[in-house]
Amino acid sequence: MKMVSIYDTTLRDGSQTEGISYSLQDKINIVKRLDSIGIDFIEGGWPFSNPKDTQLFAHFKKKKLKKSKLVPFGSTARWGKAASMDKNLLALIKTGTEYVTIFGKSWDLHVKTVLKISLDDNVKLISDSVKFLKKKGKKVFYDAEHFFDGYKANPKYALKTVLAAQEAGAELIVFCDTNGGILSWEIEQIIKEAQAAGVKGFGIHCHNDLGFALANSLVAVNLGASQVQGTINGYGERCGNADLIAAMGILKFKMNRGLAASKKISDLTELSHFVSEVSNMAHRDSYPLVGRSAFAHKGGVHIDAMIKNPLAYEHMNPSLVGNHRRFLVSELAGKASLVAKAKELEYDLDKKSPKAKRLHKRIQELEKQGYHFEAAEGSFKLLLKKEFKEYRKFFDLLGFKVSVEKREDNSLISEAAIKLKVKGKLQHTAAEGDGPVNALDNALRKALLGVYPSLSKMHLADFKVRVLDDKTGTAAKVRVLIESQDTKESWATVGVSENIIEASWQALVDSVEYKLLKDSKNN
Amino acid sequence: MKMVSIYDTTLRDGSQTEGISYSLQDKINIVKRLDSIGIDFIEGGWPFSNPKDTQLFAHFKKKKLKKSKLVPFGSTARWGKAASMDKNLLALIKTGTEYVTIFGKSWDLHVKTVLKISLDDNVKLISDSVKFLKKKGKKVFYDAEHFFDGYKANPKYALKTVLAAQEAGAELIVFCDTNGGILSWEIEQIIKEAQAAGVKGFGIHCHNDLGFALANSLVAVNLGASQVQGTINGYGERCGNADLIAAMGILKFKMNRGLAASKKISDLTELSHFVSEVSNMAHRDSYPLVGRSAFAHKGGVHIDAMIKNPLAYEHMNPSLVGNHRRFLVSELAGKASLVAKAKELEYDLDKKSPKAKRLHKRIQELEKQGYHFEAAEGSFKLLLKKEFKEYRKFFDLLGFKVSVEKREDNSLISEAAIKLKVKGKLQHTAAEGDGPVNALDNALRKALLGVYPSLSKMHLADFKVRVLDDKTGTAAKVRVLIESQDTKESWATVGVSENIIEASWQALVDSVEYKLLKDSKNN
Repeated sequence: MKMVSIYDTTLRDGSQTEGISYSLQDKINIVKRLDSIGIDFIEGGWPFSNPKDTQLFAHFKKKKLKKSKLVPFGSTARWGKAASMDKNLLALIKTGTEYVTIFGKSWDLHVKTVLKISLDDNVKLISDSVKFLKKKGKKVFYDAEHFFDGYKANPKYALKTVLAAQEAGAELIVFCDTNGGILSWEIEQIIKEAQAAGVKGFGIHCHNDLGFALANSLVAVNLGASQVQGTINGYGERCGNADLIAAMGILKFKMNRGLAASKKISDLTELSHFVSEVSNMAHRDSYPLVGRSAFAHKGGVHIDAMIKNPLAYEHMNPSLVGNHRRFLVSELAGKASLVAKAKELEYDLDKKSPKAKRLHKRIQELEKQGYHFEAAEGSFKLLLKKEFKEYRKFFDLLGFKVSVEKREDNSLISEAAIKLKVKGKLQHTAAEGDGPVNALDNALRKALLGVYPSLSKMHLADFKVRVLDDKTGTAAKVRVLIESQDTKESWATVGVSENIIEASWQALVDSVEYKLLKDSKNN
Repeated sequence: MKMVSIYDTTLRDGSQTEGISYSLQDKINIVKRLDSIGIDFIEGGWPFSNPKDTQLFAHFKKKKLKKSKLVPFGSTARWGKAASMDKNLLALIKTGTEYVTIFGKSWDLHVKTVLKISLDDNVKLISDSVKFLKKKGKKVFYDAEHFFDGYKANPKYALKTVLAAQEAGAELIVFCDTNGGILSWEIEQIIKEAQAAGVKGFGIHCHNDLGFALANSLVAVNLGASQVQGTINGYGERCGNADLIAAMGILKFKMNRGLAASKKISDLTELSHFVSEVSNMAHRDSYPLVGRSAFAHKGGVHIDAMIKNPLAYEHMNPSLVGNHRRFLVSELAGKASLVAKAKELEYDLDKKSPKAKRLHKRIQELEKQGYHFEAAEGSFKLLLKKEFKEYRKFFDLLGFKVSVEKREDNSLISEAAIKLKVKGKLQHTAAEGDGPVNALDNALRKALLGVYPSLSKMHLADFKVRVLDDKTGTAAKVRVLIESQDTKESWATVGVSENIIEASWQALVDSVEYKLLKDSKNN
């Protein structure tokens, strides 16, 4: 079985998507998840151009990844100085990674009008840059920017640039359709000609401006490409990059290629959701393989035939990628994944037990309302604990009131008052905060801290809000995700409501209960 | 120039999309719009199975279309009766159209397990059905359902079915990848073999389960297909059908094919938006050619190069399909992109002017605080208007107070009180809402509507919240984006604060001011 390596550039090309803006913590979370799946290469960013990216590499210099290799991205050296003096190349070396990626120009138009140097000087730049990195012990992927446009304009020159990189010792030449305007039969012809001209190991990097990024990438694999570059969910500037989720599914199940992530391939649906959550982008129902609608049957004719034989209207078994079949008239979701998830959290749930049935039904109800347990394991675990009688209440809410006042002098006051019963005693406290949720959080802690001092060891690390239904404007439903941590672990909880305060309250309560249950077990 | 006909099935296959449900009037509106563009064939539906579709054909029997031909869809006859007695075929004839489309089975698995008749009987059904329709004076498109899956399972039999339809007089054999699981090189090989076996005129109908629908369709055209079937925006069951918007753009500008809609090709962006409005589906930013982000440049390197030469990072001129280039204003970009962005909005800003310097500095400050103007053009335009002295205040805020109360019975009350000075008069109002922001929105409108009645024509279409800095938990800064629309356009505005109410307030105020400035200009 031929192996194909997967090179993820969600953190660089994906972060250029309109509307996406990753914090350092977002990037760290994505890297960890990609590592857990076994993605071969993760492009962490451009350390020279972006200080946030430099911090990311510093972070993972200390905390090594298990399976993936983190790769920094940069360009060939600037003209006019020796490669060994180039700050951009030096920044790549400084990251301490085994592999680095640099891009160079293949299109004569770019050399003339953007770099404004001679064609030969550009070839020398490429060769010198790769050689310098090799001398410093790096393995180099060479991204041939605009290779196909360049080849169409001036085939000899485009080939000269990539052969220079190959001769200088690059591991792979990555053919890039940077503008995304190339069709699959053009890709095929040009790659064949490049192979005939002596290009050996190559990868592929396609943009989706014509909707061809995925097809073009896999056409290249069919011709011998050993690496596919792309992003989770096809994020990227303009119309995006090749979608690695679909690419991995097709490589494994339709093209019979070997993948390092092969054993985790049924995590694709979850991975796709995870990255869309962190990116704060809606998960598209129609995503190939992993979308909510990808195996959803609506037509009556189809459903009848499906019941006779699932092969009739389904090109593959959805569970292979962690998705499931849905009949849109009556929802039937997978109980097996619930059992597996419970097992992962060390709860032994028999698929046929009343426990499993009740829990399954409850989760279906909640998900229909907009709850989402994939990214909120803390809340999911509380549901399990309730089913396994490991849950107890630590306080009763008698009511709260949160207010935000803006005065004429522009000053803002956020205040929360809360009334609880804790161990039989009434607690009625109030607190201010930086906003209404923070005020509520402060008031809740104030009321509980005297009785449960361990809460002082816990803090909220992350707070995300997602509007579920765009169409109704400010009256839309929102989902709040809160990530909390203490010295030992972190956990995420969820709340859903049309009222953001109520949604936050639910997630806050889950978070506190999770902590208190955990501590009372340890005592 | 070779002509390719466009066959739209938005009203049949497109209506199977999860979440889409067309009224008769919606269908009429879509047909009219497709006709105005000059789409060759419009599949109106399945008159036998759906009374709404019968009414549609009756409607257009009276009101003839100008350019397009409306086509009804049905199946081959049922086994057991003569074709001339088949209610489904008779319903097709009754529509009075020049063309009809019927589908039949090419996959032996389907014949055996779904139709449950012999393989030869199915061939006879196909032949008899086409012959009967021909005898009644109809031109027939024959959709070979599951042709590629059928061919992979039993090539001889699949060919036999389509040759039977061809011999019986079908205008075109339409090869269907019904399950959407076929890759482009498989399509290519199978079509070549079908041509060698004697198939002459053919069309192509692909589903997008692997993300290949568009590429597969155009690969077929490259091999000689004279008809592409698909839907506007790629709507359709599961992962959708081939997107005709992208297909038409590529056929014309990348493959140099003739289209009946050729003269209206710059209407593609508008057509795509129109159908997404009627379908009540969000228009996807990343749609090839026509998406809002399709020609939007974010990376600083890209923007610099674009200014030197647009060809550098753009595969075609966006105006050809009615779209336009955008420069996303973000921290990554310099002053040049600010000037370019202002120009796009018809503000002539000299790069070296004090105006440009002040505005650049202001945007840098705001972006440092977490504002994000690439997704909030409305707020950006207000900044421009302030610099160009086109801004004025419509009201003065004297204060507001928003509260959310949760009582012991779990009931929730969100209320806002607001005090404004509008045209010298004090307005002091209060309103409830589904949450604190909705209450504030309601109270603000209530206070302004008497003086500015045009606000009743504006509504909030989208509301997004993004937490900017995870690390500080519920005290984190949030960015609120609000998208508003009236009958003519939509605009997005932004607010940032540690207090979600204050951030929402800023975005709300910008949104209202944008609307009022626009209207006062028109008066």
